[in-house]
Amino acid sequence: MDLLLNHSTIRKFLSQTISNELLELILSSGVRASTTGNMQLYSIVVSHEKDSIQKLAALHFNQPVALKAPLILTFCADIHRFNAWCTQRETIAGFNNYISFFTAAIDALLVAQNVCIAAENYGLGICYLGTATYNASEIIELLSLPQGVVPVTAVALGWPDEHPDQVDRLPLAAVVHNDNYQVATPTLINEWYSYKESLASSQKFVAENHKQTLAQVFTDVRYTRQNNESFSEKFWNTICKHWPIE
Amino acid sequence: MDLLLNHSTIRKFLSQTISNELLELILSSGVRASTTGNMQLYSIVVSHEKDSIQKLAALHFNQPVALKAPLILTFCADIHRFNAWCTQRETIAGFNNYISFFTAAIDALLVAQNVCIAAENYGLGICYLGTATYNASEIIELLSLPQGVVPVTAVALGWPDEHPDQVDRLPLAAVVHNDNYQVATPTLINEWYSYKESLASSQKFVAENHKQTLAQVFTDVRYTRQNNESFSEKFWNTICKHWPIE
Repeated sequence: MDLLLNHSTIRKFLSQTISNELLELILSSGVRASTTGNMQLYSIVVSHEKDSIQKLAALHFNQPVALKAPLILTFCADIHRFNAWCTQRETIAGFNNYISFFTAAIDALLVAQNVCIAAENYGLGICYLGTATYNASEIIELLSLPQGVVPVTAVALGWPDEHPDQVDRLPLAAVVHNDNYQVATPTLINEWYSYKESLASSQKFVAENHKQTLAQVFTDVRYTRQNNESFSEKFWNTICKHWPIE
Repeated sequence: MDLLLNHSTIRKFLSQTISNELLELILSSGVRASTTGNMQLYSIVVSHEKDSIQKLAALHFNQPVALKAPLILTFCADIHRFNAWCTQRETIAGFNNYISFFTAAIDALLVAQNVCIAAENYGLGICYLGTATYNASEIIELLSLPQGVVPVTAVALGWPDEHPDQVDRLPLAAVVHNDNYQVATPTLINEWYSYKESLASSQKFVAENHKQTLAQVFTDVRYTRQNNESFSEKFWNTICKHWPIE
């Protein structure tokens, strides 16, 4: 399955636009992803306009891939539509709780990955914007998302203007467990991480950041406890306010 | 992209097994999914043994698709391995917080969908088991998952013994919004849900459950507030205990 095996994130796009016909084809494939009880508790906001993209990119910390993307797709957990349907059909949905939010988020994420694969199948490049959860509250305001709609991820989409080498992955044995989970022993850790640590790109990363180990680049520079804690509080408050969890 | 467009969930499998070679091919494609910072904060527990599957199926409420599956894959958000790597490389990861759990869950779900597509590409059938979050705590115990490993979804995998008709989806206009979110008006709700409500299968569902509307089947029978609230509390407590969130 070459399409999946050859996946690389694309961070540089041509200025060429994506036709509405192609976008519709991609989204039609996307929504065939499995969804809990066939309720489709998600929505996809497509930012097309230059101005919309610029404002949205700002909430993704002005990452060049977001600023230069012809399209940004924001995938949201969504009970707004389902609640409106229920009200109109003489009932009330009991979805203002955490499991329902999480279930809707699963729905949205499976669709997101389906959309990405469909897009790549047509030669487009994709880049996930994990920052969607960091600034969920600001994105809600910008996209006029009503109560019951919370962004869980976003994807920048465009025609590739680069063909980067594929990045490494841990050996399959590190992430796959048979029948029972195998805890990470010091020997296994060395075995699983030695290839990643040996890469020139990793060593450059360590040197540039004046660290001793690659792990320290992740913990001290890229994903610090302080940032994680501040984004946690922000995202959790956004969920509680906008889902809302009773 | 016929593979995505033709997706149907398969709930009846042949007894035929899945070879380890094929499984490895599928998982190798799966792990090429995008992952935050290339940290791969997930793991996949593959249940092969009849006995393992039977015990695991019980935690999925003995759904026949789980009981009869040649393989069940449990996809977990996982910082156990990453934490072990950090400790061994003289640092401490600051991942005991909600955003890190959610980010790891995203990683796990994108891999899950990639695995499903790869499996379908080889002719296998898949069925998501949303029940993984309902009984996450019991699954943790059964699969011996250490601290920092929480199941977020599961997939039953096997050779199809049925070829069900494809189920409906809402019109694309109901789930896709351009530049700004379009709130659901009564007219739009009727437009978006009329096809679903008109289906013979939906009407049978309403009649069998002695309800007036299809929406009531979802709210009063399939996904009741009471169940949602009880599973919410259970899943949230499991996350707090096993991630653990500080």
